[in-house]
Amino acid sequence: MTGEVILLDYRFSPPTMRVRVALKEKGIAYESKEQDLFNKSSLLLEMNPVHKQVPVLIHNGKPICESLIIVEYIDEVWNDKSPVLPSDPYARAQARFWADFVDKKAYPAGKALWMTKGEPHAEAKKELISSLKVLETELGDKTYFGGESFGIIDIALVPCCILFHTFEKFGTFSASDVCPKLFTWGERCLKRESVSTGLPSQSETCDFISGLVKRIGIE
Amino acid sequence: MTGEVILLDYRFSPPTMRVRVALKEKGIAYESKEQDLFNKSSLLLEMNPVHKQVPVLIHNGKPICESLIIVEYIDEVWNDKSPVLPSDPYARAQARFWADFVDKKAYPAGKALWMTKGEPHAEAKKELISSLKVLETELGDKTYFGGESFGIIDIALVPCCILFHTFEKFGTFSASDVCPKLFTWGERCLKRESVSTGLPSQSETCDFISGLVKRIGIE
Repeated sequence: MTGEVILLDYRFSPPTMRVRVALKEKGIAYESKEQDLFNKSSLLLEMNPVHKQVPVLIHNGKPICESLIIVEYIDEVWNDKSPVLPSDPYARAQARFWADFVDKKAYPAGKALWMTKGEPHAEAKKELISSLKVLETELGDKTYFGGESFGIIDIALVPCCILFHTFEKFGTFSASDVCPKLFTWGERCLKRESVSTGLPSQSETCDFISGLVKRIGIE
Repeated sequence: MTGEVILLDYRFSPPTMRVRVALKEKGIAYESKEQDLFNKSSLLLEMNPVHKQVPVLIHNGKPICESLIIVEYIDEVWNDKSPVLPSDPYARAQARFWADFVDKKAYPAGKALWMTKGEPHAEAKKELISSLKVLETELGDKTYFGGESFGIIDIALVPCCILFHTFEKFGTFSASDVCPKLFTWGERCLKRESVSTGLPSQSETCDFISGLVKRIGIE
């Protein structure tokens, strides 16, 4: 089952990166429609009237929103290849827990790192390092978060791989010092074709965020 | 399959209410261990070391955290009765989207309504009313959010039923005026045994929140 698959996309948005990686892991052909987030298209507003955000996956004309929900949808519909979630209910709950942790803790702190100054910036740096250390412990010596296979926790966190440069610029800390296992995991992920072709490069991302910060007047 | 089911619980916590309702819908016998959230037990800290929060479902000694993840776990393990999620992947994604909306939009605004004063309070009231109206539209003329059967969106939002009094006290607005269909849905939910026995009463809840607000010094 494939049908028509369209992704309302934005190259530098971490949630859209997750969806691109999941589609590529499953080998699903799709059309990417890059969106202008400063001038939202009528298609985006029609397909995601509640949050008005990318990513939106449009499958045979029907929209699915919110990146982790889209990833689970992809896994359920294209269930013949590269499972993203384990089949055991307890392992599934644990995978969902850590993907949710990435959403609730790591990304908000990362975003606050370059969107704030002064005390909130210091707080964000502390929170981000703490989250990365928790994830480092959870990863341990495993190849991927779920063991030998690349799954939903990896997909949730994988945009982080290209943010390590940005952390150094805005947070003045080295990810390879703070979380060496996570850093190595990131390098391992970047060797996967789904990740290397689904994500922009580290330096492009750092330049983009620096430009965004200037554009919205934080620097 | 049942095994030993323990819930680390707190009577007035909306996320724990969801889990109690889901357990009761499935007819699962469980032991509730009420927690002191101002003096957290070593069991809670051991079972949820990341967030240190209730609810935690301990099934045969293994912990599952985060209310919506617990509800999905319950649905997957006890899959012979009262399905909480639809079986079709698109309908599942939509159900997850709305449950996530309740988590991201409605509850944070509700909490801010009684935890803030001045401008943030006015902002929270606006956000809460806006979220309730979005949910009112999504519910429409259906019996429950998923149609005729009580499912995950209902479970996510059901603690709201007993907060309508609290909205009136802290937000000076009437839920029956702002969202009459949602108000009627709440009355319908309260007739279900799982809800009436799983939730405290409206007046108890309003008294509890008033006491909490005084205790932490907002009034």
